[in-house]
Amino acid sequence: MIPPRVLTVAGSDSGGGAGIQADLKTMLALGVHGMSVITAVTAQNSLGVQGAWELPVAAVVAQYRSVVDDIGVQAVKTGMLASAELVEAVAELIAGTGVPAVVDPVGVSKHGDPLLAASALDSVRTRLLPAATVATPNLDEVAQLTGLRVESEDGMREAATAVLAYGPKWVLIKGGHLPSPGEAGRDGGRGTGAGAGARAVDLLTDGTEEHWLRAPRHSNRHTHGTGCTLASAIAAELAKGRSVPEAAAAAKSYVTGAIAAGFALGAGIGPVDHAWALRGPGGAG
Amino acid sequence: MIPPRVLTVAGSDSGGGAGIQADLKTMLALGVHGMSVITAVTAQNSLGVQGAWELPVAAVVAQYRSVVDDIGVQAVKTGMLASAELVEAVAELIAGTGVPAVVDPVGVSKHGDPLLAASALDSVRTRLLPAATVATPNLDEVAQLTGLRVESEDGMREAATAVLAYGPKWVLIKGGHLPSPGEAGRDGGRGTGAGAGARAVDLLTDGTEEHWLRAPRHSNRHTHGTGCTLASAIAAELAKGRSVPEAAAAAKSYVTGAIAAGFALGAGIGPVDHAWALRGPGGAG
Repeated sequence: MIPPRVLTVAGSDSGGGAGIQADLKTMLALGVHGMSVITAVTAQNSLGVQGAWELPVAAVVAQYRSVVDDIGVQAVKTGMLASAELVEAVAELIAGTGVPAVVDPVGVSKHGDPLLAASALDSVRTRLLPAATVATPNLDEVAQLTGLRVESEDGMREAATAVLAYGPKWVLIKGGHLPSPGEAGRDGGRGTGAGAGARAVDLLTDGTEEHWLRAPRHSNRHTHGTGCTLASAIAAELAKGRSVPEAAAAAKSYVTGAIAAGFALGAGIGPVDHAWALRGPGGAG
Repeated sequence: MIPPRVLTVAGSDSGGGAGIQADLKTMLALGVHGMSVITAVTAQNSLGVQGAWELPVAAVVAQYRSVVDDIGVQAVKTGMLASAELVEAVAELIAGTGVPAVVDPVGVSKHGDPLLAASALDSVRTRLLPAATVATPNLDEVAQLTGLRVESEDGMREAATAVLAYGPKWVLIKGGHLPSPGEAGRDGGRGTGAGAGARAVDLLTDGTEEHWLRAPRHSNRHTHGTGCTLASAIAAELAKGRSVPEAAAAAKSYVTGAIAAGFALGAGIGPVDHAWALRGPGGAG
């Protein structure tokens, strides 16, 4: 009767497509009880981030303790952490919780707005990544964290090794920005590019096992929230007791459907559709 | 293909059962795109509110403008507004937006923690209520706003007249705290009480039409988020183009199912279940 509980520690996206909004929607769609620690509030829409207000470290710690000490959690997911102080506080909190932690090392928004201070990068490398069960960088974040520019599937393997050296148990390198064979590079943001017959390829590995997750790459520019959604879906599946490879495969399938159903909102990039899997005969949407 | 868009302007409940979390979950379950302006962040769980951090008025205005000016909205819902300054700023924003606005005049949490400064009550009466398409006070909020102590269904009619005098187009007086005939008064919070064969009775009126909404009152103490959920559901149904009486009836039906499915979380009062309507054969939960 009581669903598994999953906590996101992330920023708020007023437009509802990314951040804790994407996380909570994903969790509802996947049948777990979503909870949230807000690290920063952004004024944001389809065109970019118009403003951001960080919460004090004490507010982040208080939210976390309120949730974990009374309600309890089966998995945690982290997203936008804004500053070195918040990264370090959150790393300590999740390291002390003893449940699977999915770390999405968010660096910039889909529009290139910075969501993490440059001074926080070293704290991500040395404090946050070691506390992660799974880290989910895209290729821009791989470059930011390791200095490696990935341009091929072999490069993804090399990137995985470099990220694993910081201490996460597993890494999921999201190759969505990787040009398909014969396709010119494009789509500089956090989105998944499109191309006729193209495949979105991710690599999940713990340094021993290697799982290549391949899905059709949809011709849809409305991909706002893709990264938050994937990481939350992994956390939701881990909270249900699935293994990391099972959870990543299920999450990839959910996010692929959400991208395919992504819709236009506003003048810029619209969101993925978190409700896509609910629209069967029993759905209320 | 593009769902109606609904904006909640409210506080954040880290435990995920009330506030913008309840609002966004309700909106996903009812097939609209949920967006949120955060007015305050609370550290909160099943036992109460352990801390609260208000956002600056400028941050609330910026979030609102980012959403409304680019993405647009078909309905707005307001919840916890914390201070007189925020009440007045939000009243001005919704009055200028020209879409239906559902105002849940949140005064205290289910545990009695204050979520609105006493000094803000007059701003609610004179600025916020006049901008409301529907106001949804419970009996404690009726007492706070009008001084009337409702103890019968006739009293609800009198309360409705008193609230309508402040200027909302419609008022939904939530009689969930009203003792059933022969039942002693209890359940002092924002929850819906329980009693064998008891009915939860709400009165919707614009001063001309009168709609009594009756539903079974479930023996379930896990009702955290009931008020947020009802107001959000009304806003979602208004955004789909329904009339106020149709939207209120649909929302009452949704929240009644959510209360029936409410579950224990933590040591205190658990949440209503926002996913209850999704668990048909097509649901992903």
